[in-house]
Amino acid sequence: MNSKYEQIKTLHFKIFPNAVPSKDSAGAGLNQTETATASVSQILFSKKRLLERCYPGSYIINSYLLRALRKLEGLVDFHMQSIGAQRILMPSLSPSHLWKDSGRWDLMGKELFRVEDRNDNQLCLAPTHEETVCSMVANHQLSYKSLPLLLYQITGKFRDEPHQKHGLLRGREFIMKDLYTFDENETQAKKTYNMVVNAYENIFKELSLNVIKVAADPGAIGGSTSHEYHIESAVGEDTLKLCDKCGDAVNIELYTDVHQPKNCQYGSCTEKRRTVKGIELAHTFLLGDRYSKPLNVTYRSKENKPEYTYMGCYGIGVSRLLAAAVEVLSTSSHMKMPRVISPYQLVIIPQKKGYKFEETLHIAEQVYDELERIPSTRGEVVIDDRFNQSIGQRIRDAKLMGFPLALCVSKQALASEGGDETVEILDLYEGESQRVALQEITSYLSARVATVQHHLV
Amino acid sequence: MNSKYEQIKTLHFKIFPNAVPSKDSAGAGLNQTETATASVSQILFSKKRLLERCYPGSYIINSYLLRALRKLEGLVDFHMQSIGAQRILMPSLSPSHLWKDSGRWDLMGKELFRVEDRNDNQLCLAPTHEETVCSMVANHQLSYKSLPLLLYQITGKFRDEPHQKHGLLRGREFIMKDLYTFDENETQAKKTYNMVVNAYENIFKELSLNVIKVAADPGAIGGSTSHEYHIESAVGEDTLKLCDKCGDAVNIELYTDVHQPKNCQYGSCTEKRRTVKGIELAHTFLLGDRYSKPLNVTYRSKENKPEYTYMGCYGIGVSRLLAAAVEVLSTSSHMKMPRVISPYQLVIIPQKKGYKFEETLHIAEQVYDELERIPSTRGEVVIDDRFNQSIGQRIRDAKLMGFPLALCVSKQALASEGGDETVEILDLYEGESQRVALQEITSYLSARVATVQHHLV
Repeated sequence: MNSKYEQIKTLHFKIFPNAVPSKDSAGAGLNQTETATASVSQILFSKKRLLERCYPGSYIINSYLLRALRKLEGLVDFHMQSIGAQRILMPSLSPSHLWKDSGRWDLMGKELFRVEDRNDNQLCLAPTHEETVCSMVANHQLSYKSLPLLLYQITGKFRDEPHQKHGLLRGREFIMKDLYTFDENETQAKKTYNMVVNAYENIFKELSLNVIKVAADPGAIGGSTSHEYHIESAVGEDTLKLCDKCGDAVNIELYTDVHQPKNCQYGSCTEKRRTVKGIELAHTFLLGDRYSKPLNVTYRSKENKPEYTYMGCYGIGVSRLLAAAVEVLSTSSHMKMPRVISPYQLVIIPQKKGYKFEETLHIAEQVYDELERIPSTRGEVVIDDRFNQSIGQRIRDAKLMGFPLALCVSKQALASEGGDETVEILDLYEGESQRVALQEITSYLSARVATVQHHLV
Repeated sequence: MNSKYEQIKTLHFKIFPNAVPSKDSAGAGLNQTETATASVSQILFSKKRLLERCYPGSYIINSYLLRALRKLEGLVDFHMQSIGAQRILMPSLSPSHLWKDSGRWDLMGKELFRVEDRNDNQLCLAPTHEETVCSMVANHQLSYKSLPLLLYQITGKFRDEPHQKHGLLRGREFIMKDLYTFDENETQAKKTYNMVVNAYENIFKELSLNVIKVAADPGAIGGSTSHEYHIESAVGEDTLKLCDKCGDAVNIELYTDVHQPKNCQYGSCTEKRRTVKGIELAHTFLLGDRYSKPLNVTYRSKENKPEYTYMGCYGIGVSRLLAAAVEVLSTSSHMKMPRVISPYQLVIIPQKKGYKFEETLHIAEQVYDELERIPSTRGEVVIDDRFNQSIGQRIRDAKLMGFPLALCVSKQALASEGGDETVEILDLYEGESQRVALQEITSYLSARVATVQHHLV
């Protein structure tokens, strides 16, 4: 893979694994019945085969979409790191005795995938890791001086979901960021809780998503204080009562039918609440000693006495967040993502093969090389090398793929007598276009590309 | 976490989760019996609790060691990307019908963790993904024009290993890079094979590891050509016959007892072969149509006829490679890693609390800030804030932790009348030390830190 041409050729596979039509006649990876009930993100991901079903509720994520997922992971890493959380990696399999200690072996019922090893030991595929992290931390002689302790991971989780639905929105295998916190007492734990909540809000802000914070039911996890973060969407599976005036929201799960709050009760607000559907993106819990007691996670207090740590746990459904963002920002013919996590920031589209093709390709490659030299655009640019398609066809495809920006090098780009060479830069998300002189491209673009550093933490 | 002090304080947790002694009396996470049979890497990882056992053959990787693993992943990503391979993400669970189609459902026996879902469907936790990747690629109408197609992932794999041993060297859950290649025919597949082999050799070169390429037994995977990559180590589980003269090696598994080659037969070489133990790090296979035929992975040839793709598969045991590198480079009191993947490049050690402590801490923080501004050292430096320990104690610990470089700011660092402020920089791997003037630190270090970019591919 040395020549320029080879390099471009590999991009062909990278972006367009489906450049050839798929076997199923709909050409969309979904059959007609499925398309009728599919969500927008599911349709878009299937159309371009960014996501392919492996078994019900479980998907292969192809390279283009995986870039978005990994950028999102990097963003989450950054915000976890900024509050002093340490990234660790726990195994997926967890021995049953820990779950029996916590009481969840029976409680989790059919949601838990159970496995027996060759020695008839019972294990489960962990949907969440309170038991595992507690079994480790219990072996450390924690002192009050080493608290708060914040440990998280970003890994695949498993849940034998009876109602898997809408692709990445509700699957049986999914990517989750799970954070576990250990504090001295409730007062300290609440400080930690607020710090994490603040980090979550920064994540959603960086993604420019309108996320609703909702008081929630702690459910099977156990514990006291709990909030969910939802995004409003018709395909959401939770029903929320939202006050548009003050922004307060509750999940109706918390109320019996007769006691559902029709009007806001937040502060002095009495506005009528609106009923909306929400997709749950994240969940925060104060757990108290729900797990630290049965699993014996203690620390030495100032008085040198063993005390149970006061725990919290905090999840973000990372793969679901990616799909939900696409769900609310897109239509079924135009994919949009938060710009910071878009797989690539820019696609360069030279003229179709024919008159003046070579010249426009030359300019396209020149621009590509130049943008590869600039840190903010390096690795963020691809050339669409399907040269047998018109620029218009490829722009439509760029919209389906979710590119924020397209740079078109048409015949008109070439300098006329005494004129400058210009290209057209389209902001596909805003629906704007601008003709830009060749020598001004880098300064024009560097103000317009969104980047998220891929942090190693 | 705003103040400088808080920032440093979090590093305390990050590097030294075990600053307090662990509960078990050996203080090493291993009991006496275990220590007697443990490998060097296992002892080192346990001493500093970088690795903690969750169940036999399965470990929690703590944040410090995870940084090394993620750097190694980044290195592997880079070299896979450079040959045009696309990173994808496949689920861990794989439906039994695919494994029945390939014939491995029975063949894999007890090594396969098997799971039943709530609808009594049989699944397995995939130790390798030929079946899954084939089921996807079979749904694409591949043309000869879209070949070679190279797809890989870096994920946790599962094997119900009867002889789990030596921590990350042989576990039941482990991180593997698995690449699957699709070609038109054997000739093309051999070109791809050589390209991948070349990338593997570049990876080992970048890690400065002496790796032995061995003709191997294709085993349960099936197929024809196959090579293993081993590193020589007393704890290795394979026996190799190595010719020190020409470097050729074979795995004795390939031979019956009476036919074991005592002397080299490579080219005209007849040197006596040495028997060595090897840890297998990587494996490459040409598979032919072993999987593409039963799973129907075809492409349209130039003549527009459907033909089976000629496959290859290529694994690197990423977590094992990390442990094996530590195994061969270290002693049980001094951990060394390939410099490019060391979690941090430099630890700064200020004076112990007492006379002139504040002044040395001030210099330490100044140096830290300066190195954070330079791309090659940003994020690669920590201050050892266990200020109640002597510099000597902390240097011993820095050796146990595997830091390549230590920068000590002792009382002597402070400028005497008319003199320059100097610090001592220790190359802990080479056992060298150098006194360097404050204003020369950055230029001195930038030539000595090893970096691997964390690539997003």
